[in-house]
Amino acid sequence: MQFDKNAIENLESRYRAALINSVSGFKPANLIGTANPQGETNLAVMSSVVHLGSHPPLLAMVVRPGGDERHTLANLLASGEYTINHINSDIYRQAHQTAARYPAKVSEFSATGLQEQWLEGFSAPFVALAEVKMAMQLRQHMPLEINGTHLVIGEIIHLELPDNAVRSDGSLNLPAAGTVALSGLDEYLTAVALARLSYAKPDLPLREISEESE
Amino acid sequence: MQFDKNAIENLESRYRAALINSVSGFKPANLIGTANPQGETNLAVMSSVVHLGSHPPLLAMVVRPGGDERHTLANLLASGEYTINHINSDIYRQAHQTAARYPAKVSEFSATGLQEQWLEGFSAPFVALAEVKMAMQLRQHMPLEINGTHLVIGEIIHLELPDNAVRSDGSLNLPAAGTVALSGLDEYLTAVALARLSYAKPDLPLREISEESE
Repeated sequence: MQFDKNAIENLESRYRAALINSVSGFKPANLIGTANPQGETNLAVMSSVVHLGSHPPLLAMVVRPGGDERHTLANLLASGEYTINHINSDIYRQAHQTAARYPAKVSEFSATGLQEQWLEGFSAPFVALAEVKMAMQLRQHMPLEINGTHLVIGEIIHLELPDNAVRSDGSLNLPAAGTVALSGLDEYLTAVALARLSYAKPDLPLREISEESE
Repeated sequence: MQFDKNAIENLESRYRAALINSVSGFKPANLIGTANPQGETNLAVMSSVVHLGSHPPLLAMVVRPGGDERHTLANLLASGEYTINHINSDIYRQAHQTAARYPAKVSEFSATGLQEQWLEGFSAPFVALAEVKMAMQLRQHMPLEINGTHLVIGEIIHLELPDNAVRSDGSLNLPAAGTVALSGLDEYLTAVALARLSYAKPDLPLREISEESE
């Protein structure tokens, strides 16, 4: 099946949204926790978190200033703080339900039954049942004029991980943490490792890195 | 296991790189094809492609101006064109091997045995064995001063997909396309669907969207 620029432009809008939201490949499935200056909490699924650098430890995300993401953006700009929580296979249905348009006064935490967890001295809530949790400090905010989205760059200032998912070299075993992936707008998936491959060098065959028992 | 800001700062650098490259969750696994003005081709794994919007159809990616990604960036800035090709389970080893530091005159296509495919009137090469292929026109380039990376925004102007992976609503069945995910710096994974969930509404239970046979 092929689409050129005109064919994409002429697709029915929901079909185009479903298609174009799928073509980047697998997406990370995260819940973003924030609070407004009154301490009212908000929780939103975000599939756009992307690694920016490890020193300093920076993650970026693309936020659409509509619907639920509007509150996320307003809250994190006001407080300079937010949390990133991995969605796992025990909570993906509640996570997806956070996208419903609840009245402004209703927290997605209480509406979906996902419990809040707090870190002393940090203003944004974590998802208690998430296995991988990060406290983020806002470092840069760039509105992207090309389509009205916003690039939000934050630094990881606190990190919680399940012991059994951290390998001896520092890499995470995401399936062991229960972390799920997203595809398109609505599909949640678990993952199965094919292989870890050694650092590539010219004229040397790749080795498989075997899983250690921690 | 917990790390605060100081603990992250004091990690051994390879451990920190492995850890921080893992914490965003699952990443898309794509090969970026470019050519320089002399027509010499380049191919690089990129795990940072992110959906920016579907109308116009925009994808962004974060490029690190070091090693192989330097050639990708120079080529796409010079030509304004690049391709995004999904890595699938048949080619992930060759894809990973493109990261080896070949001499500038050696194309990663010929070095790894991945065959080029060309689209008339388009200057960047596709990966013939990729099932999902996109021709991208550069729309915006933003150096990110915070850590010297570059945000590259492109518009999809041509899209090739396997018929059996396109659902009737436009969404892609990524496992059916053989598409793989990346974790950290070196782990490739296949995915298994948990469920597709209906559009969330307050006070309405989520439905599972069942897979149609196309």
